[in-house]
Amino acid sequence: MGKLIIAGIGPGGEDHMTAACRDALEGADIIAGYTGYTALVKHLYPQKSYLETPMTGETERCREALKLAEGDRRVCLISSGDSGIYGMASLVFELAADYPAASIEVIPGVTAASSGGALLGAPLGHDFAVISLSDLLTPWEIIEKRLRMAAEGDFVICLYNPGSAGRPDHLRTACDILLETLPPGRVCGLARNIGRSGESSITTMLEDLGKTEVDMFTTVFIGSSRTRVVSGKMLTPRGYRNA
Amino acid sequence: MGKLIIAGIGPGGEDHMTAACRDALEGADIIAGYTGYTALVKHLYPQKSYLETPMTGETERCREALKLAEGDRRVCLISSGDSGIYGMASLVFELAADYPAASIEVIPGVTAASSGGALLGAPLGHDFAVISLSDLLTPWEIIEKRLRMAAEGDFVICLYNPGSAGRPDHLRTACDILLETLPPGRVCGLARNIGRSGESSITTMLEDLGKTEVDMFTTVFIGSSRTRVVSGKMLTPRGYRNA
Repeated sequence: MGKLIIAGIGPGGEDHMTAACRDALEGADIIAGYTGYTALVKHLYPQKSYLETPMTGETERCREALKLAEGDRRVCLISSGDSGIYGMASLVFELAADYPAASIEVIPGVTAASSGGALLGAPLGHDFAVISLSDLLTPWEIIEKRLRMAAEGDFVICLYNPGSAGRPDHLRTACDILLETLPPGRVCGLARNIGRSGESSITTMLEDLGKTEVDMFTTVFIGSSRTRVVSGKMLTPRGYRNA
Repeated sequence: MGKLIIAGIGPGGEDHMTAACRDALEGADIIAGYTGYTALVKHLYPQKSYLETPMTGETERCREALKLAEGDRRVCLISSGDSGIYGMASLVFELAADYPAASIEVIPGVTAASSGGALLGAPLGHDFAVISLSDLLTPWEIIEKRLRMAAEGDFVICLYNPGSAGRPDHLRTACDILLETLPPGRVCGLARNIGRSGESSITTMLEDLGKTEVDMFTTVFIGSSRTRVVSGKMLTPRGYRNA
């Protein structure tokens, strides 16, 4: 019987894949995904069949995977990070009604908030908000409103998709909005190429964050009022009282 | 040379541990953690030394682990889920200045937002806020403000520590606050005992969520305006436009 497993492979390297993800890849007849992600697992399973589509072919890729799973094929559809957080899982479930015979399972993975946080120290030790700066599918006004509410609520803010060639100014615009509420000296951090070649992290301040170069492999952290840098590590204490 | 590795073991079962976490456990001289977490790995490494403390002995446990790592011991300090998200990592970095010779590494894991989300479907397909309802270390007014801001910002809301024997009414109080802004029919979901015996998930509506029994092994999801239930799965589309 066929099955569609949607698996998050974590930040990139096999170190941060879960055993369940490895099992799903190993047991699959076909590994499906955006070419940028299949490239990360191909050396592990060079003999497998691959169903690869460019970034913009997502709906088509999910439909094809569902169709194969309705038959007798075991398909593993991969996302980087966690498959549920800005990943393929929600799109698959949106389309699943058209493929009633397909059995679907989601395998969670290590998302960039966690893996980037680990590189920087422990920025997410307390309540946080995750916001994507990509306005490809979301009106910018909604993103702006969320930035304001997250700042107002004193959340640590974790930004996914902070910029790309087509959107070079999004992070600067976001910082200008946050600076209406937050102080210029607010602690921030960036994690780049997590789990891949060129992995690095730096801490900075909100007034300088907007001038920092970012791409789609960067995850940005803006601290809460409690966040600080201690011995080079960005940390947010777990509470407001000492335990 | 000694080292302190702070590792997130994921939701519970070894299926959702990463390879890096397994390596850290295997290479450790001593596995340290709250007894409820060491119980989850002891069957895998019955020969190891364990440094176990009750839930309230966290500072003491971190200091002991740092002290051992300053010598020649390799200590793996475990948290469930991700070690950076309400885990031990921030507390260790807060204390680390007192143990300058200790080398520290954080290994990220699969947090309950991801693993609980995978059980329910894909509730975190778009921007979300993570809030702990525990007021042991945080004044309740701050939690309340964050609930209001997250609702105002139309975030999906993921609640950690929604209740315990000592705090049976926190979830009901939180729901009353959210109902000032959000409609009673707002889609919600609960994931229980993720990755452990008794694992289950249900979807419900905000007006009924407050009456639902929860404990410290429950993770709660409150949908955004876009979240819906399709064929029993809770999903939030990745954006506001079709791709």
